[in-house]
Amino acid sequence: MKRTVFFMSDGTGITAEALGNALLTQFEGIEFERVVLPYIDTIKKAETTIERINKTFEADGQRPIIFDTIVNKEIRAIIRTSNGFPIDIFETFLSPLERELGHKSSYTVGTSHSISEENSYKGRIDAVHFALENDDGIRTKNYHKADIILIGVSRCGKTPTCIYMALQFGLCAANYPITEEDMRDGMITLPKFLKENKHKLFGLTINAENLSNIRNERRANSRYSSLAQCEMEVDLVEELFIKEGIPYINSTYFSIEEISAKILNITGIERKN
Amino acid sequence: MKRTVFFMSDGTGITAEALGNALLTQFEGIEFERVVLPYIDTIKKAETTIERINKTFEADGQRPIIFDTIVNKEIRAIIRTSNGFPIDIFETFLSPLERELGHKSSYTVGTSHSISEENSYKGRIDAVHFALENDDGIRTKNYHKADIILIGVSRCGKTPTCIYMALQFGLCAANYPITEEDMRDGMITLPKFLKENKHKLFGLTINAENLSNIRNERRANSRYSSLAQCEMEVDLVEELFIKEGIPYINSTYFSIEEISAKILNITGIERKN
Repeated sequence: MKRTVFFMSDGTGITAEALGNALLTQFEGIEFERVVLPYIDTIKKAETTIERINKTFEADGQRPIIFDTIVNKEIRAIIRTSNGFPIDIFETFLSPLERELGHKSSYTVGTSHSISEENSYKGRIDAVHFALENDDGIRTKNYHKADIILIGVSRCGKTPTCIYMALQFGLCAANYPITEEDMRDGMITLPKFLKENKHKLFGLTINAENLSNIRNERRANSRYSSLAQCEMEVDLVEELFIKEGIPYINSTYFSIEEISAKILNITGIERKN
Repeated sequence: MKRTVFFMSDGTGITAEALGNALLTQFEGIEFERVVLPYIDTIKKAETTIERINKTFEADGQRPIIFDTIVNKEIRAIIRTSNGFPIDIFETFLSPLERELGHKSSYTVGTSHSISEENSYKGRIDAVHFALENDDGIRTKNYHKADIILIGVSRCGKTPTCIYMALQFGLCAANYPITEEDMRDGMITLPKFLKENKHKLFGLTINAENLSNIRNERRANSRYSSLAQCEMEVDLVEELFIKEGIPYINSTYFSIEEISAKILNITGIERKN
């Protein structure tokens, strides 16, 4: 069973897509063919879109589902004349919100992903640059400026998590890979620049087998990617987290979105965005 | 006028937040105090949350707005007993979707931001690593693997845009900064490795004055950040885009989310996520 789904907006379409996908994941067993149509912001484009929806209806033999956040009433009215099944996100919620807030909505297009709050946007972009410049231990002298410093073995998910936290929450997230070089007398000790920022440290760990698979894609059949080496490193690092009382989570079964949300939840760090 | 808004979920809360913010931007002139509460996934947490909502109600003298994507019916029922104004995203749309699809929803928590589709998730993470490894022209030998190559003057927004496209769409996005070193006889010529991948090139430009401000934050009062230098570089690069027929947009007034959506819209590149 296949259903075509259109996500549609006169802006970027990001919200329509996020909401639509969240709802669609509730229907297992149905295969969805997804089409994202941003910037449907003229009557001409709306008419072309209707043609496309109606053609899809004929081809599928079933109404395409339409998630839209089109703000312009005229364009929305045109889309409503198609043979799709509309989930009109704005229509549904704006009227009750208007009543509750005692305020008319401005019906302006797509400000939720624009540079409407310039300082907060600039903060996110600066945070992305911070994450890149302080990735993978390449610099350790800026840790006093970091909001959070992720530590863990190489390839356990630190880099993409830092980038996500920067992009989404505007947080200055650095990360430092724990390696054998940080080992003294058979156990890992925190280097000085991490000790000085201990309250900012958060640990990531990962199942050794998954780590070995990930590393094998980079350097196949090396000591670095062997299961024995991965097990040893993971054991040592988890021991360190426990000994030093550093909060940590296992990243194996979580996406970077989930890891980031969990980190904020556990540490109580306030997002800046 | 201030209203407190709670975004709430038994998952990450990303969808509740995206939808809520999209709706709230429609109400200019109201100041919203935002609270994101992910992982409200036990009755105990739901009860603590109600206390918080009710205290906020007393402090504000007005009902807090609640956007939630809580899937668990029992937890949702508890939240409904609070003194907040609920926007129940799932309740509102799941029933009509169930009827249209002829399928019961599974009422499972938070799969839309999890690693539910492992290949697509892995593709996004690989794309993030690709973006980092092919950022800022540091490597040019992998351009045959790129889905898109952004070009433009230094600090016009290439890096964060590439990272966003990787993270969100799973696209392998490289970027190359055009500098004076690419100039021959008073005009920019495309280096060989870009010429060979010309169909993948997309240009970013920026207003010279804004560029000068951005560069000044990095290297104040340098030739690099002077308005004259910025104007010269921007002129040359725009000339190049036009001469070579490279599609481009001006990034000055757009967020990276908007720039990315526009790039996909203009080029027709299919997202991989």
